[in-house]
Amino acid sequence: MLNDLLNWRYATKKMDPTKTVPEEKVTAILDALRLAPTSSGTQPFEVMVVTNKDIRAKLSEAAFGQQQLVDGSHVLVFAAWDDYTDERIDMVRDETGNARGGVTDQVRDYYENLKGMLVGRDADVNFQHAAKQAYIALGVAMLAAAEQEVDATPMEGFDPAKFDEILGLREKGLKTCVILPLGYRDAENDWLVDAPKVRRNRDILFTRID
Amino acid sequence: MLNDLLNWRYATKKMDPTKTVPEEKVTAILDALRLAPTSSGTQPFEVMVVTNKDIRAKLSEAAFGQQQLVDGSHVLVFAAWDDYTDERIDMVRDETGNARGGVTDQVRDYYENLKGMLVGRDADVNFQHAAKQAYIALGVAMLAAAEQEVDATPMEGFDPAKFDEILGLREKGLKTCVILPLGYRDAENDWLVDAPKVRRNRDILFTRID
Repeated sequence: MLNDLLNWRYATKKMDPTKTVPEEKVTAILDALRLAPTSSGTQPFEVMVVTNKDIRAKLSEAAFGQQQLVDGSHVLVFAAWDDYTDERIDMVRDETGNARGGVTDQVRDYYENLKGMLVGRDADVNFQHAAKQAYIALGVAMLAAAEQEVDATPMEGFDPAKFDEILGLREKGLKTCVILPLGYRDAENDWLVDAPKVRRNRDILFTRID
Repeated sequence: MLNDLLNWRYATKKMDPTKTVPEEKVTAILDALRLAPTSSGTQPFEVMVVTNKDIRAKLSEAAFGQQQLVDGSHVLVFAAWDDYTDERIDMVRDETGNARGGVTDQVRDYYENLKGMLVGRDADVNFQHAAKQAYIALGVAMLAAAEQEVDATPMEGFDPAKFDEILGLREKGLKTCVILPLGYRDAENDWLVDAPKVRRNRDILFTRID
């Protein structure tokens, strides 16, 4: 099943500007990525769900004019925490307590220990760590989009500082790390739609140590 | 369906040392992660599939004694490229050519442009970028394990330099970025197996910009 989704999806190059992804499908994609696992359950990112046309046009400009941002109907902007802070880890601790019957000594100790490891490290090291967690969620979101038969184009080709400015992310302590426009393929005008998938041979990608 | 997989999986804390994941299930997991999308199709990582007990014991030691590495039957070690090089990008270019009817001028130009962007950048920036792609594949591998009803524990708590040494990765231009032991839960002895999943409220995780 998962293989079917992986084979169905592709990095859509041309989306059909006349089509809109229904909100219930977007919700399903968001619900799936929310369940993606992350380091110590920190979920160290937020996702901006942009439908506003003017803002998507500005984001497209800040993404070297890539048209999927305007031809699709939604852009998911993954914005990772710019750093780990005591406040943020305390939020995670309290979420754990709320879900699991209170902040026990064990839970408190766990997150105090986590603070000791993360808080105060170089901010960019922490941002890179947070961004990696967002990439797990990105992978889940791409599969969830495929399950909804929604096309999606993961993109790193954009100016993160401009994205942060357009979306007001710096003042929230967030930095854009990767984006995922959602929409529907314009198959007739997409050169990539029928191209065979390229993947590395298994004997290079995998090494058995038995 | 994807939601079922996401809810079924959890970061297994205690695996049953008497059980072995069948090879056909491991193959299915590897086949899925091989299809995970990556930046410009580079797939900038390799995966070591470790079953050897002595080596898993050494890896466990280098992972603060975490027992899943020995109680499970397989450890997937995601090792990202330590840098982007002309040679590596040429390999990707040739793979594309092989799959899509030859290295056309367009394909050649695309990868020359990619070299211009990546090769010669700070090696750690490139390694971090490569590691993020491995995290997409990690997410896919976790879902694929769940589809096979195989338990898996994503881990960052290990000494990467020791892993690289034990597995001889540095001489291959690789660096361990994340690991995924595979096995079967020992439900009676796993404190986490019945704990409610903790996930952030949607109104914090998601911001609509309509």
